[in-house]
This record gives sequence, structure tokens and C-alpha cells, in this order.
Amino acid sequence: MKLDGFGEESCAVTESAPTENPAAPVDGIKADDKDSEEVLVPPLNFAMVDNGIFRSGFPDSANFGFLKSLGLRSIIYLCPEPYPDSNVEFLKANGIRLFQFGIDGCKEPFVNIPEETIREALTVLLDTRNHPILIHCKRGKHRTGCLVGCLRKLQKWCLTSIFDEYQRFAAAKARLSDQRFVELFDVSSLKNMPMSFSCLKR
Amino acid sequence: MKLDGFGEESCAVTESAPTENPAAPVDGIKADDKDSEEVLVPPLNFAMVDNGIFRSGFPDSANFGFLKSLGLRSIIYLCPEPYPDSNVEFLKANGIRLFQFGIDGCKEPFVNIPEETIREALTVLLDTRNHPILIHCKRGKHRTGCLVGCLRKLQKWCLTSIFDEYQRFAAAKARLSDQRFVELFDVSSLKNMPMSFSCLKR
Repeated sequence: MKLDGFGEESCAVTESAPTENPAAPVDGIKADDKDSEEVLVPPLNFAMVDNGIFRSGFPDSANFGFLKSLGLRSIIYLCPEPYPDSNVEFLKANGIRLFQFGIDGCKEPFVNIPEETIREALTVLLDTRNHPILIHCKRGKHRTGCLVGCLRKLQKWCLTSIFDEYQRFAAAKARLSDQRFVELFDVSSLKNMPMSFSCLKR
Repeated sequence: MKLDGFGEESCAVTESAPTENPAAPVDGIKADDKDSEEVLVPPLNFAMVDNGIFRSGFPDSANFGFLKSLGLRSIIYLCPEPYPDSNVEFLKANGIRLFQFGIDGCKEPFVNIPEETIREALTVLLDTRNHPILIHCKRGKHRTGCLVGCLRKLQKWCLTSIFDEYQRFAAAKARLSDQRFVELFDVSSLKNMPMSFSCLKR
């Protein structure tokens, strides 16, 4: 299934209807059991970006209980590789829609973050009907960092703060090419989109 | 002025009534001017912790426009030093309440994170009547990291993820003593407090 306005190459959309028993525990988490001593395991590099927007590295089955607790409506997945079966099953069981934008995880100096793909992902990201939404790639550093960086630019953050945030997640793997991509990314065509700022949601 | 249940030594509360013209621009930011090219400058180490909860290093006047955009109701300040006049003025002008918990920024091995103070700060933090709320110390690494770590423990995050988050902000300055403090912190007495999980707010 595809959404209008999304190119076949860059975005595949999977819509998952909830199963007949959406309350069935996928991984043993019982939402109503307040005394449960079970710990929650957020994915690698997990963080909250803004209201209804989260970021992380690739989630595996150990993270499903935690992801369930976020009540996600959608996931933006930024890698070209197919989604693993167990993750697809998790999405189906919880009625979570997958927006896949296949961006190659090239290494410097052969980096090529496709601007049009990031622009399409940003459009999905800014649509609050898709929230709560999780952005992830493999390690939550480069592709995810670029998309979040472009969101910050649209939110008028100064580049120093955008790069500070990017580097916090990329750490020793920070890439100047990613930061240059964010710096040069033109947000002017997106400026009239409704935006979910933290301050407007409370 | 003090709040019930807070010790004089560890918590000073300042209540700031909004000035007569709360819409007056403190720093030139015009909330309704969508075409404004003014950039926003988040404080050092700024991040969203959960719905209505933010963290950062010490904000200065360059950050006031950004802080204003968050619509803060309160600030938890974790250092013993008095709040600078310009910051006090900013709080007054925007009706933001200051909860000060003076924790010394000792260096290892002379670290002494006072458990009772963190517990009191946590109580303020969990009270959604104080949200949106910003937690900050000097650099947003150690004292802020400990308080957020204790919040994560209450939210049942596994220690690996708590420490991963702590280290993301503390980076080369990460302290084992802080992480041990979070590991040993007993959340059992706080478990029955109402909590603002991301998933429950949407």
C-alpha cells in the first residue's frame, strides 16, 4: 500500500490493522499491573524529541514492551532493508503503521543523504495524525540524526544546538557530512506546515 | 516562601506572579510572527525528558526566548548558588515558579548526592501541576542526570538504558558514583504517586 505523494522508491507504507485481541500481551507486559516488577527496555539511543515524537536505534523484541507503553501510532523507518518478521508482527498486533524510507547507510566519504526522501519523511513526521511516532534507523545516529536535525531547523533552533543534539547521539561516529546536510537543508517550503511545538500542546 | 513538606535547607521556593503585561517580549521573540527569522537558542544539554518535563544546563539570557516558547510553569534548580538577577527577572515576567534544591557540585571522590533532597525534587517533578517544568543544574550532566535517572527508575527503565541516557549527557564527565547513586536509590515509597508517562498523555 502506498500513500499519495510518496515515491515508490523512497517510501513504502504498511498499514497494520490491530488483531482481534489487541490487548493480548505481546511480550508479557501487563499494562494494568501496577505492582509488576518487570523492567522496561527502551531501544538503543532512545529519546523523546518533542510531543508525540520519539527517536531510537533499531528496536528488537526486548524493546516491544517499552514501545507498547508509548502507545505508538506510527514508525518512520529509515533503512532500505526489509523489516524483520517479529517487528512486523508486533506492529500488526498493536495497529502501528510503518512508513519506510529506504536511505542507504553509506559511510563517509560516500555519503548521500537524499534530500527529497528526508523531505517526505518530514512531512509524515509533522502530521500529528501519525503521532505518537517513533523515528529509527539502525543505530539512531546518522539517518535519524539528519531527520531530527531538519525538524530542529524547521523549529528554528540555532545550528549550534542542532549539532550539539546530533553529536550527543552520534558521539564518536559524528559525521561532518550529516551536519553539512542539515545546515544546507532548505526548510522554506515546509514553513507553512502546522507544527507540534512543545509549548502548544500543554 | 516554602511549600509544605520541604526542608528549609534543601528547597527554596520562589513564586513569581506574572507581571501586568505577560505578553511583553522579554527578548524580542514574537510568538505570532511566523515569518520571523529569529533563531531559538536552547540551553546547553537541552532535551525533552517526558511530556511536560525538560532538562538542561544553566540557561542564560540567550536562552530566554527558547524557554519562553516552552511555556514553562516551573523550574527545578539543583545548585546552592543564588539564581542570577536576570534569570529571576525572566521568571517573574513569565510567571515561572522556581524550586531550588541546593546540591553541592562536589567532584569525585568527594561526591555526596543527598538522597532526601533528590526525593523531594522528585516529588515536585512528578506533580503535573508544576508542568511544563525544566530541571537544570550547571551543565546538565551530574545533578540533573541523577534526578532524571531516579525518574527513569520509577518509570521502570532497566539500568542499562538509564545509564546509557546518563552517559549521553555526561559524556567524558560520567561518574560511577552518580550511577551507583541511581542504582541504589529506593523508589518503593514513590511508587504510588501518579505519574506522567508519555503513553498516558496522548
